[in-house]
Amino acid sequence: MMRHAIELAGQGRYSNHPNPRVGCVIVHEGRIVGEGSHLKWGEAHAEVHALQAAGAAARGADCYVTLEPHSYQGRTPPCTEALIRAGVARVFCGALDPNPKVHGEGVRQLRAAGIEVHSGLLEPEVRELNLGFEQRMRSGLPRVIVKVAASLDGRVALANGVSQWITGEQARADVQRLRAQASAVLTGIDTALADDPQLNVRDPAIELRGRQPLRVVLDTGLRLPAAARMLQMAGETLVMTSAANLLPGAAAAARLEALQAAGAQCIGIGLDAQGRLDLREVWRELGRRQCNDVLVEAGPTLTGSLLHQGMVDEWIIYYAPMVLGGDARAMAVLPALQRLEEARRFELQALSRIGTDAKLVLRTSAGSATNV
Amino acid sequence: MMRHAIELAGQGRYSNHPNPRVGCVIVHEGRIVGEGSHLKWGEAHAEVHALQAAGAAARGADCYVTLEPHSYQGRTPPCTEALIRAGVARVFCGALDPNPKVHGEGVRQLRAAGIEVHSGLLEPEVRELNLGFEQRMRSGLPRVIVKVAASLDGRVALANGVSQWITGEQARADVQRLRAQASAVLTGIDTALADDPQLNVRDPAIELRGRQPLRVVLDTGLRLPAAARMLQMAGETLVMTSAANLLPGAAAAARLEALQAAGAQCIGIGLDAQGRLDLREVWRELGRRQCNDVLVEAGPTLTGSLLHQGMVDEWIIYYAPMVLGGDARAMAVLPALQRLEEARRFELQALSRIGTDAKLVLRTSAGSATNV
Ligand SMILES: NC(=O)c1ccc[n+]([C@@H]2O[C@H](COP(=O)([O-])OP(=O)(O)OC[C@H]3O[C@@H](n4cnc5c(N)ncnc54)[C@H](OP(=O)(O)O)[C@@H]3O)[C@@H](O)[C@H]2O)c1
Ligand SMILES: NC(=O)c1ccc[n+]([C@@H]2O[C@H](COP(=O)([O-])OP(=O)(O)OC[C@H]3O[C@@H](n4cnc5c(N)ncnc54)[C@H](OP(=O)(O)O)[C@@H]3O)[C@@H](O)[C@H]2O)c1
Repeated sequence: MMRHAIELAGQGRYSNHPNPRVGCVIVHEGRIVGEGSHLKWGEAHAEVHALQAAGAAARGADCYVTLEPHSYQGRTPPCTEALIRAGVARVFCGALDPNPKVHGEGVRQLRAAGIEVHSGLLEPEVRELNLGFEQRMRSGLPRVIVKVAASLDGRVALANGVSQWITGEQARADVQRLRAQASAVLTGIDTALADDPQLNVRDPAIELRGRQPLRVVLDTGLRLPAAARMLQMAGETLVMTSAANLLPGAAAAARLEALQAAGAQCIGIGLDAQGRLDLREVWRELGRRQCNDVLVEAGPTLTGSLLHQGMVDEWIIYYAPMVLGGDARAMAVLPALQRLEEARRFELQALSRIGTDAKLVLRTSAGSATNV
Repeated sequence: MMRHAIELAGQGRYSNHPNPRVGCVIVHEGRIVGEGSHLKWGEAHAEVHALQAAGAAARGADCYVTLEPHSYQGRTPPCTEALIRAGVARVFCGALDPNPKVHGEGVRQLRAAGIEVHSGLLEPEVRELNLGFEQRMRSGLPRVIVKVAASLDGRVALANGVSQWITGEQARADVQRLRAQASAVLTGIDTALADDPQLNVRDPAIELRGRQPLRVVLDTGLRLPAAARMLQMAGETLVMTSAANLLPGAAAAARLEALQAAGAQCIGIGLDAQGRLDLREVWRELGRRQCNDVLVEAGPTLTGSLLHQGMVDEWIIYYAPMVLGGDARAMAVLPALQRLEEARRFELQALSRIGTDAKLVLRTSAGSATNV
């Protein structure tokens, strides 16, 4: 039943940002009488959908819900109340809500109302649904997922900059799903200039329910042209730039105006010792904007910065079965190492075949590398 | 039954070079009465082992054998005769013998003796057992398998040359099995100098039955030191060098003598336009020496030459979950490309997890790239 609830939770995977993904199953005398999934922010929660479907059959029933029911009045009324009112007998939850406003309080309220509550059912699988949400609730920072499409020898573009397309159609379709699962898709200005990427979700099979992930460009010098394709797509684009470019009378003032006229939102970020945008500030800002998962699709410079600063929580590499050779562009620019022990290490989380390509999913060993 | 015969054939995988791997099952009234595997060159063939085990029960039985029984007097008498003498009723073979001395003749002899013969049972799986043998029988040249151990960003050594160990213990144990399956293990002189590799099979769990794969070093200038570790190991080492180094009075004469005294066999090979050993001649020589599969474990220079000349039949890459950065050594040195369409392409044959690492097996699309 919890496995089924996990499946239901997955239905909201592309659309319910910034909320956690939640699924709920109500079972009366061994029969499913109600199911629900939280599909969109501000709309009904999974429990409410399931209780509605169950109607009177909810009385005395068992409720399987992936996440602890929320216990406070937010955009929607507390789910704990709805469960108590419906008279369910037992509640099984997958995990406690990492949101400090709820954590344990939902369970407490249910128990106080005489409902039997079991928590931690299939917890590892349940938590996989909301790694980004959990990280943001814990630290205020999003989970950073870096995606790279490379040749077997780890090249992401030819020396002349050509990189479209290294991977096959199916891998690119898979990236559409990665984007759709993310709160934001982020790139570096040099990729924006080289490839003019759209950075949007355009696969009609993906049920976004009206949203598009936020597009973010790291652009210290405000070089993004107002004609960039991503500015013409549905959804919002956020240009992060040196705060100096936003001062009245700055040399970039005309470019700023043109970008804003083209619909971009431009905000100032402090610089790091190398004179580039301070990535810690970037994540703090995106955390404030309720980004759970940020998908980075950048070139070797920014990918290298992230790896070097230990800011990659998950790294997804698609290897296309071709070889590009030593003068093609590397996956990541990083300072030279003297010993193999100095190398940054990951854990191989999953590997699969996607069309003609191989997909590797890697995670930092400690669960999170965002050492901000 | 044929699947079982394939398993039996696998028992000879490390030891029966240069013969093909063959397994045989004899079935009488639905019951297995004999099994056999060809384990070592010059010793009994799979059919003979199985017939011996079956004894009188072979009369009227069905014989499942992965490869067409051989039909001529070689080191061992023809298996066709043994089958006829034993009075088996039907023979099912997986594939015809690619050896032109046999091809179809074994089947013809059996049929002439009144035995019912079916060929081509599970042929694709059966042929996987003997891709190298088949290639050598067809072209006189071995199958070339290139193995690389790399970081996620496709680096095989640090800029300072350090490469031990990028991959984990289990991947290295897997390489021991690759070596054991090969007729020869080949490397470039610069790897020999940098790593002083043993290039032998030293896993006691691998049943080699006394053989070691031939070790081969491509060494135009005869730079291999007589103290090289591989010369101290059981088995033979073949140094391929410029023919000029073998002339009496050559500058390398003292080095040649020292190498020979240390047990190396040194032979001359013609040079290519770049003044390096002509790789076509290398394969012809190894084909003449009855090498079916040659495992190449070299650095980026030789790996690049092989890829560039389209001489890689199978490419096995172990990716360790670490990143080494852009100044570390590339997987393959190759001329620059202008367009992605110019890149050499492979087909992803298999992917798996080996301990902490990922293993990708790639093949050239047309089955063989050895365009010699
Ligand atoms: N195969 C793939 O998966 C893939 C994906 C994307 C791109 N690419 C290829 O990669 C190439 C572009 O890569 P790239 O390395 O030149 O550019 P990039 O990594 O996309 O962008 C780097 C730029 O971002 C800006 N930036 C701002 N803050 C930064 C920080 N803290 N750290 C790092 N960068 C920061 C810097 O420019 P400012 O200082 O001016 O802000 C920097 O030069 C193109 O050829 C593209 O086709 C391939
Ligand atoms: N991670 C791994 O899987 C792995 C495996 C092996 C090595 N490595 C690392 O790779 C590095 C050594 O690589 P490398 O590229 O310098 O050396 P290499 O590829 O092992 O050997 C290249 C040398 O072989 C000789 N050679 C002869 N005929 C050749 C031909 N037709 N084509 C190419 N080479 C020919 C050449 O020297 P002459 O002209 O003098 O004959 C050439 O310089 C070391 O750091 C080692 O640790 C890593």
